[in-house]
Amino acid sequence: MTTSELEQLRSVYEPLAQSVRRLIDVSIRSQADESSVKSVIDKIDGATAELETAALREGSFGLEHTGDGQLMAWGNVVMGVRNPVAPPLVVHHEPDGSAWAEFVLGAAFEGPAGHVHGGVCAMLLDHVLGATAHQPGMPAVTGTLTLRYRRGTRLGLPLRAEAHVERVDGVKTFAIGHIADDEGVTVEAEGIFIHPRTNNRDDGNR
Amino acid sequence: MTTSELEQLRSVYEPLAQSVRRLIDVSIRSQADESSVKSVIDKIDGATAELETAALREGSFGLEHTGDGQLMAWGNVVMGVRNPVAPPLVVHHEPDGSAWAEFVLGAAFEGPAGHVHGGVCAMLLDHVLGATAHQPGMPAVTGTLTLRYRRGTRLGLPLRAEAHVERVDGVKTFAIGHIADDEGVTVEAEGIFIHPRTNNRDDGNR
Repeated sequence: MTTSELEQLRSVYEPLAQSVRRLIDVSIRSQADESSVKSVIDKIDGATAELETAALREGSFGLEHTGDGQLMAWGNVVMGVRNPVAPPLVVHHEPDGSAWAEFVLGAAFEGPAGHVHGGVCAMLLDHVLGATAHQPGMPAVTGTLTLRYRRGTRLGLPLRAEAHVERVDGVKTFAIGHIADDEGVTVEAEGIFIHPRTNNRDDGNR
Repeated sequence: MTTSELEQLRSVYEPLAQSVRRLIDVSIRSQADESSVKSVIDKIDGATAELETAALREGSFGLEHTGDGQLMAWGNVVMGVRNPVAPPLVVHHEPDGSAWAEFVLGAAFEGPAGHVHGGVCAMLLDHVLGATAHQPGMPAVTGTLTLRYRRGTRLGLPLRAEAHVERVDGVKTFAIGHIADDEGVTVEAEGIFIHPRTNNRDDGNR
């Protein structure tokens, strides 16, 4: 796939995910009455049916390999631009091997009232710590991950997740990181990420 | 709120979340052409606008207290019946204090091709382990959580998450659990969950 084909495809489907993402947020917070909700369900089911008139990918999005050896993980639950569940995280890689992402989480990620579910923090930290171990076209999989929750993480506020490599030992990358808001760290994490010895890029945990 | 009012409210909004959940899955797997996708986006945006004609809850769903002292966590990202992102997990509590849930995860939860994102496993285990420490109306928050990934967890297959209390020490509950498919355990977890000493039920990590 050429770069321009990739951009064309993204220009079609990324706005679809963004549209569904807005609907998710509004549907959770809606206080519309019964007849409005029924009418809305009809509209949504109509949209779903229209998408189903063309054959769907079987099971899940999977991974597409682009021309330059990158993996196109558009269905990924954390970073996938075609996955409405993904915030989506844009993970930045620094020359020193560290990785970071800045994001705001809304109603869809709630645990305690007004706060991010602790499990969502775990999910995002798994991803960002794992990103420090990734090499082009070869994601690492999670071996172990430990989270320490210092305090609640608020919905609706700017958050930053960051991670760096502590050391590398053979196929294992030891990474450390955290999520922070503007008052400091809310959740700390450390993990061991592993490059599978096989050439099968489709197995693993990330 | 009476039980019948609660059931009435659920009968209106649960089908909305189910409808959006189907749309999420299909939108990720869609191979529709550009003009179809544009038409679908118009339909979705129309549905969102219709929901917005009534005032939205501010920020997030939050928690509603029902008449019998239970918390109605309908916006919860793991178990919320009004949250289209939630699978949603139905967590069963056994008399011995253990908790379990059975579920199938689709395209929306993908990490490696065809597999559940390791971070999603972490999220669900955080929730199910934490459930062993919950008391009616008083959720526990996560202190620490450690995950060990044995192998990849497949999308589209029946999965079971379960957890039990190892011991209780003051406000701390030590819980152990795992996710398994029909061939055995894929991810193990242990965690410490804490009942906040304050009466503020709205803080914390779950």
